[in-house]
Amino acid sequence: MHERPPAGRLSRRSILAGAAAGVVAPIAVSALAPPVASAAPRVAGVGGTTRQITIYAEALPNGEVAYGLNPGQATIPGPLLEIWEGDTLEIELVNTTDQRLSIHPHGVNYDVVSDGSPHNDSYNEPYETRTYIWRSQTAYQADGRWMPGSAGYWHYHDHALGTDHGTGGVTKGLYGGLIVRRAGDLLPDKQFTVVFNDMAINNRMVPDTPMFEARQGERVEFLCVGHGNNPHTFHLHAHRWADNRTGMLQGPDDPSHVVDNKNLDPGNSFGFQVIAGQEVGPGAWMYHCHVQFHADGGMAGLFLVRNPDGSMPPGAQEAIDRFNNHQHHPHTGAHG
Amino acid sequence: MHERPPAGRLSRRSILAGAAAGVVAPIAVSALAPPVASAAPRVAGVGGTTRQITIYAEALPNGEVAYGLNPGQATIPGPLLEIWEGDTLEIELVNTTDQRLSIHPHGVNYDVVSDGSPHNDSYNEPYETRTYIWRSQTAYQADGRWMPGSAGYWHYHDHALGTDHGTGGVTKGLYGGLIVRRAGDLLPDKQFTVVFNDMAINNRMVPDTPMFEARQGERVEFLCVGHGNNPHTFHLHAHRWADNRTGMLQGPDDPSHVVDNKNLDPGNSFGFQVIAGQEVGPGAWMYHCHVQFHADGGMAGLFLVRNPDGSMPPGAQEAIDRFNNHQHHPHTGAHG
Amino acid sequence: MHERPPAGRLSRRSILAGAAAGVVAPIAVSALAPPVASAAPRVAGVGGTTRQITIYAEALPNGEVAYGLNPGQATIPGPLLEIWEGDTLEIELVNTTDQRLSIHPHGVNYDVVSDGSPHNDSYNEPYETRTYIWRSQTAYQADGRWMPGSAGYWHYHDHALGTDHGTGGVTKGLYGGLIVRRAGDLLPDKQFTVVFNDMAINNRMVPDTPMFEARQGERVEFLCVGHGNNPHTFHLHAHRWADNRTGMLQGPDDPSHVVDNKNLDPGNSFGFQVIAGQEVGPGAWMYHCHVQFHADGGMAGLFLVRNPDGSMPPGAQEAIDRFNNHQHHPHTGAHG
Repeated sequence: MHERPPAGRLSRRSILAGAAAGVVAPIAVSALAPPVASAAPRVAGVGGTTRQITIYAEALPNGEVAYGLNPGQATIPGPLLEIWEGDTLEIELVNTTDQRLSIHPHGVNYDVVSDGSPHNDSYNEPYETRTYIWRSQTAYQADGRWMPGSAGYWHYHDHALGTDHGTGGVTKGLYGGLIVRRAGDLLPDKQFTVVFNDMAINNRMVPDTPMFEARQGERVEFLCVGHGNNPHTFHLHAHRWADNRTGMLQGPDDPSHVVDNKNLDPGNSFGFQVIAGQEVGPGAWMYHCHVQFHADGGMAGLFLVRNPDGSMPPGAQEAIDRFNNHQHHPHTGAHG
Repeated sequence: MHERPPAGRLSRRSILAGAAAGVVAPIAVSALAPPVASAAPRVAGVGGTTRQITIYAEALPNGEVAYGLNPGQATIPGPLLEIWEGDTLEIELVNTTDQRLSIHPHGVNYDVVSDGSPHNDSYNEPYETRTYIWRSQTAYQADGRWMPGSAGYWHYHDHALGTDHGTGGVTKGLYGGLIVRRAGDLLPDKQFTVVFNDMAINNRMVPDTPMFEARQGERVEFLCVGHGNNPHTFHLHAHRWADNRTGMLQGPDDPSHVVDNKNLDPGNSFGFQVIAGQEVGPGAWMYHCHVQFHADGGMAGLFLVRNPDGSMPPGAQEAIDRFNNHQHHPHTGAHG
Repeated sequence: MHERPPAGRLSRRSILAGAAAGVVAPIAVSALAPPVASAAPRVAGVGGTTRQITIYAEALPNGEVAYGLNPGQATIPGPLLEIWEGDTLEIELVNTTDQRLSIHPHGVNYDVVSDGSPHNDSYNEPYETRTYIWRSQTAYQADGRWMPGSAGYWHYHDHALGTDHGTGGVTKGLYGGLIVRRAGDLLPDKQFTVVFNDMAINNRMVPDTPMFEARQGERVEFLCVGHGNNPHTFHLHAHRWADNRTGMLQGPDDPSHVVDNKNLDPGNSFGFQVIAGQEVGPGAWMYHCHVQFHADGGMAGLFLVRNPDGSMPPGAQEAIDRFNNHQHHPHTGAHG
């Protein structure tokens, strides 16, 4: 089960970003990776490579369980995995916990032995290491029609901890984002993974939800994933996207819906790119679930768009402070 | 805050409809505006104008709160606002109530000072007047890709009354529709705004839900908005639409889904045009939430398609009467 | 009401499949029709025919109520009805029960007398026979635009039993699938109807949910329908589809979302075709609601992809056994 072909490992984009002109190698980055220097537009390359990573499933001190690329570095969500359409990903999953668990992807191909489902006997026993193989494919023709490939904004999650559907694992934090790029897809400067999991975002509520940061003009990518038991809608202030595979239009006549609010129900995922602060300026912009009681209960966070030079725009710190206090300190002050 | 550039105000379509051949000026109409005489197809013009309106937020005698274009004329939903892509809308919001409140739009551009959110200090104190500026933009190119413009079926709502997410305001009726037209978009003869807000439609339940009326053959536009805390699905009998930006196809090969039932969850919005009674004839057609308990509980209304001459089709009045009585008088009569 | 034009009845595809080369006649098949021999790609023909069927609404011994094409053969879901875009379907509905009930379709055209709604006096009294006429239409031009036709993955259901919205009928099983093909649409080898109705699939829970079977390489069509009172998301393991009218792409540049998880809320429907086991191999693949508590509660089933010769792939029977026992026998055994 542990044979490893001699292929390159996934690496952090911050390491690889300077390695190519226009086309860069795939990456695995955490949701809060440091900024990448922006340059000429960079695009995804042609897939076909087999890539290997090791993921560690770890119990966290607070009772959560999470995936990480190195021991002691598990995060919620887990590492953002990114491949080119056509690539194969071999994941050595090291279970460091005393619970059975697995990793199950959306959007890619796998045999039953990599399904991650208990009924297919595809999971890690406590303290077991097991390899899962995910393959991706480009669109292909069958019966004279084009069948879809794997390119998309996807995700992965446990399918075995607690119940046969991984409800215990998903609840505790065993999930992450997966992006499969089509050759030529535009690469962003920043990437953020937003998981609506029951009444929390990335298992946190206000004021502990993530504050995503970018400079005005940077190309920012959001990957949104839904989990848990409740319906949600993701809303981002002052930015919008096309409701299609890339979030962009193919031209001014593309009939795609343009949205700034979209269902993010359990198992759903979508992604899009925006130019931070485009035509709206820098500032502390909110993203939140638009279900009113969910937002009021803490399903909200900030997308901080800094000035192009990285400095804080006027009033932004005050806005952040008000946001972080809003659950406990009803606003009473005067304003302009 | 109150400087006003010397640009034209929004006007009712009924006033402006005769002002141009083929291209008419933008409008703001109530959801129940009087019929407009149909003529040759009329299309949206090119944006770029700054338009000014005043909106009054008012407490209604029954405890609801609503927006209106003139004092004493607040309605639920508020006035339907319509601009051409590229236009700017300057809204002087007059808060006539003793509660803080705001106006927050979807789909358009605004600086943090027009965000309508308490954390950005962007709201009206009790009895305060404040100006919000919304800008719209056409699709534009960045990094060699087409980024979406503002054209779409959107909405606006309070974001400050009761909670920092405006839950009190939305619950009480502070919401309305917003349409941004792309140049060349086809204009309808009639427009209806349908807001699924918790267990009610436009804050009303059967038999008080709106009955929308048109003549057979008229081009009717529905703008559907979701609010509150519950998931919903909008269903219209005997009519359907393409699930894309306009609700129409770009040609017979357009791959868009065609639907007659669509999620209308909190913060979502979509719109479409149908030819009233096309191929199905006049009559009292139902629209309703397709969640069974919601429909049974009163989330239903009628779309009355009259004969082309405006007269009532046979049996329609009886159907209306049965519909309005259906909650309290179980049907027992014989029928054909 | 009962005049019947001299047109052909719907027939089972298994009967008609050999009747044409490339183009076959429409069909009505049950969700579990026997396998059809695969041949050269077969496509939908040109509509325009009036087709007649009789449907029997029957009370089942266990208290459920269902539609069937012959007396004593009612199934849940009811017969899968399939027509070509442009066809008319005349349905003689025989109510063999002591309750009022009706049949209401999505996606097609009907006059108020065929609405199936009590307020339009359109239903069957107990033991009454009544004819409902559904017409379909191709996309057509109006005001220089293309208005959508009827082609799509739709459904039909009761709208009168228990409440004016048919809540009693839908709950008890009065629903089925309806497919309207556009001329040239590709026909599948197998068809499965999956109805998420409250907390059950086709009114059944694990281990009684349907196991759909195909051979690796067969073109399989899923028609998914939502009903009841709860939001759901449909997820299929190891297969994906384009989120558009056909589930396939129009070419490698088609911007449609590709998904393997999609909202299936009350009244929603969608369909798609996959090549069974394509690039993932045969095996027992799960489909389920991705709402965790729904899946854990029994909203899951298997899509068994057999070997190309019809034999069972290694391990599949064990996987089926584990799946069927998973609610009652927590997995404790060792594994590979």
